[in-house]
Amino acid sequence: MDLNAIEILLVEDNPHDMELTLRSLKKHNLSDKVFVVEDGAEALDFIFATGAYAERIIENSLKLVLLDLKLPKVDGLEVLQKMKSDKRTKSIPVVVLTSSKEEQDIITSYKLGVNSYIVKPVDFDKFFHIVADLGLYWLLLNQPPY
Amino acid sequence: MDLNAIEILLVEDNPHDMELTLRSLKKHNLSDKVFVVEDGAEALDFIFATGAYAERIIENSLKLVLLDLKLPKVDGLEVLQKMKSDKRTKSIPVVVLTSSKEEQDIITSYKLGVNSYIVKPVDFDKFFHIVADLGLYWLLLNQPPY
Repeated sequence: MDLNAIEILLVEDNPHDMELTLRSLKKHNLSDKVFVVEDGAEALDFIFATGAYAERIIENSLKLVLLDLKLPKVDGLEVLQKMKSDKRTKSIPVVVLTSSKEEQDIITSYKLGVNSYIVKPVDFDKFFHIVADLGLYWLLLNQPPY
Repeated sequence: MDLNAIEILLVEDNPHDMELTLRSLKKHNLSDKVFVVEDGAEALDFIFATGAYAERIIENSLKLVLLDLKLPKVDGLEVLQKMKSDKRTKSIPVVVLTSSKEEQDIITSYKLGVNSYIVKPVDFDKFFHIVADLGLYWLLLNQPPY
């Protein structure tokens, strides 16, 4: 897999949500260029091209980072904060996809500069459709910063 | 019209694009709470509750500002810059909807903190559908910052 051709980075540690997300993206032909990492530390390595991902170019073709908040090692909000405060990664669209409806998480995400905040529906079908809708929006409608 | 119940602020000076946008929002039952301003100065008055809009509460229920770039009086990029550098308005989702595909406009918008950047399609039908898609995304899927 060519790491520099990845368009969606999915940061998700819940195996059930990860599988459902990937299945929805695949159904809508959006899964070709997805890469999955399961904790915040690996997400940062991928995004900033460090550690195992040193071969990546930071300013590459990422059109969307789909970011869970409650993550092992490094929390999603910290990943967001680091991305949005670094010139090289600030413009990459980040959508928080989380089960948290806590006001504090929502407010903090926006303050840190999240592009969009989506609450995971509990219902299986709704989850499936929401992932498809957001994938289509960010990959096909939105003009990425390059 | 209760200014504090407005959910979408449409900033658009082109009568044709404005009508098409409103028609699309109406068709998809998203037009109840739209307010239209035709230049950047009025947009700033509305957003910051000054001038003719002094009765508005700044921290209100805006879920989306749909912002054209080439505007009379105050340019769209300046409106964006002012919104995104003020604590009271930074979190309001702003989608640039413009005919400009100029790299400089895209890069500057992202640097200033735009939530999403959409290029207006030339085709009438496509324009109609894109407005509906983005309206549904930001009003129904996205969790606003309040």
